Amino acid sequence: MSKHKIIYDTDPGVDDAMALVFQALHPDIELLGLTSVFGNATIETTTRNARFLAGRFAAGVPVAQGAAAPLRRAAPAPLARIHGDNGLGNIAFDSTCAAPLDARPAHRFIIDTVRAHPGEVTLLAVGPLTNLALALADDPQIAPLVRQVVIMGGAFGTAGVLGNVTPAAEANILGDPDAADRVLGAAWPVAIVGLDVTQPTIMSRAYLASLRDRGGAAGQFVWDVSRHYEAFHGQSAQLAGIYVHDSSAVAYVLAPHLYTTRSGPVRVVTEGIAVGQTIQKPATLPVSAPDWDSRPACKVCIGVDVPGMLALYERTICGLPEVR
Amino acid sequence: MSKHKIIYDTDPGVDDAMALVFQALHPDIELLGLTSVFGNATIETTTRNARFLAGRFAAGVPVAQGAAAPLRRAAPAPLARIHGDNGLGNIAFDSTCAAPLDARPAHRFIIDTVRAHPGEVTLLAVGPLTNLALALADDPQIAPLVRQVVIMGGAFGTAGVLGNVTPAAEANILGDPDAADRVLGAAWPVAIVGLDVTQPTIMSRAYLASLRDRGGAAGQFVWDVSRHYEAFHGQSAQLAGIYVHDSSAVAYVLAPHLYTTRSGPVRVVTEGIAVGQTIQKPATLPVSAPDWDSRPACKVCIGVDVPGMLALYERTICGLPEVR
Repeated sequence: MSKHKIIYDTDPGVDDAMALVFQALHPDIELLGLTSVFGNATIETTTRNARFLAGRFAAGVPVAQGAAAPLRRAAPAPLARIHGDNGLGNIAFDSTCAAPLDARPAHRFIIDTVRAHPGEVTLLAVGPLTNLALALADDPQIAPLVRQVVIMGGAFGTAGVLGNVTPAAEANILGDPDAADRVLGAAWPVAIVGLDVTQPTIMSRAYLASLRDRGGAAGQFVWDVSRHYEAFHGQSAQLAGIYVHDSSAVAYVLAPHLYTTRSGPVRVVTEGIAVGQTIQKPATLPVSAPDWDSRPACKVCIGVDVPGMLALYERTICGLPEVR
Repeated sequence: MSKHKIIYDTDPGVDDAMALVFQALHPDIELLGLTSVFGNATIETTTRNARFLAGRFAAGVPVAQGAAAPLRRAAPAPLARIHGDNGLGNIAFDSTCAAPLDARPAHRFIIDTVRAHPGEVTLLAVGPLTNLALALADDPQIAPLVRQVVIMGGAFGTAGVLGNVTPAAEANILGDPDAADRVLGAAWPVAIVGLDVTQPTIMSRAYLASLRDRGGAAGQFVWDVSRHYEAFHGQSAQLAGIYVHDSSAVAYVLAPHLYTTRSGPVRVVTEGIAVGQTIQKPATLPVSAPDWDSRPACKVCIGVDVPGMLALYERTICGLPEVR
């Protein structure tokens, strides 16, 4: 099979880093580039972190700097309580191995790369969707040239929550709801990996310790980078482990059979108390809904094979043979 | 035990009628009155139907006419496709046995009745919440005098849907979102029985036929009144039966142990594409949310013992001894 050609649009971010290592080590993925975006930290911090991660785990993969703020709002405050002051769980890292910065802004890098590989590129977006919206605005014709857009973001209530930063909104979508609404309405195939499947997928402390002990340098890094993040989960959610957000989107690319999906157009609420909420019209709802009906269907993940996902991540980090 | 003193705020409506029979026949319920509201049909139709239902099944119980339209919107169109042109599945009925109409408007009837029985009255509301909001506006002090408010309405996504008339809204709440937001924010204990538990609760055709054959005149009525409604469910949801909306709220009053609930304040979206949506802040969400945090917690039903609910209804209609 041909590899998945991925542009990883990311705001590292602890779980972004864990998902980068996952991609870098999996033989079926070819990383074409990283594009940074504000979100878990400022654009300066996420760009520096993306360059560090690419330099250490994906040598030769370019990094392009993206949006510093949402399309029409102020940038949110960095989530230091979750991701640490440096966005990577306060671990020390050697910035001398940082990947060089591409001269283009992220959205131009996305446009050029999609046009260079028509029909082949997967946009894997795990932060606010500003870069993708800017790419669409600059060159709307790229949408049908993209193989698929896989998004970590949103929440649809099937796992009991509609959000994690407000009662109605997940952090990435709330980061730029206007951009998200445009991205979900464009003519490219979209799959949404939201809290419905990422909160039920939990890496326990024992699982992470096993990666540390059996996963070599990558496993040690995953352990180190997740210490602060795990402490946050313990305090906020009384969880003895961590939710698996961004790596779930990687798993969806590699093994979509691990996920149950529901098809239908999705809108994002851009104003009011529900701002940032993702609302799907399920194909089974027998009413007309003008705000949804003119839009393409998205696939929304509503179920996950948790042991299957965790085994896929573990095999990849530990370099074990894949079960096919 | 003392009986549940209920004011039934209703927009009959087929499932409203089925829930009225349920209440009228259950020995633990004392109906203090019916209050009508627009919704499934016009206020003229729902009031006539409420009077017919009270006259036939609950002789001596007064009916007070309520709101013809929402607080600050136009009245929605009658749902004849679901409830029939006459609001009762197009069955013939003898209006000569209609209960007399109370001289007071519904919200005054509610206020007077609550004040006559402080701490004892359950408001069982299965239509748009306009009458309850008007009662609160006229006499805010009644809230703490009400034993509980049990509402059929809303949807929280745990059963896969956020609405049945739009992708974001359930019919009763969308009927008057402003009223609903006020009612859910008042200082009375509120339990919400929404689509999360009413759509998973299905009366099959065989179940309804069994009521017809074993439930005497009441069972025959339940069968007759539900023919049009069942046909609608067959067309719209490919369902060989009917969702149990309003009777689920009655079951919650009688047997709350049949329901799993989640506690937390609930807001209703009053503008935009999500208008009519109910959004709870679960007590477990570790963020501050100013639009929710100043409000009292509501109980939201997220799980139901379906066989237990159906058995309770069947025993009541068929006059079988209750299992305690």
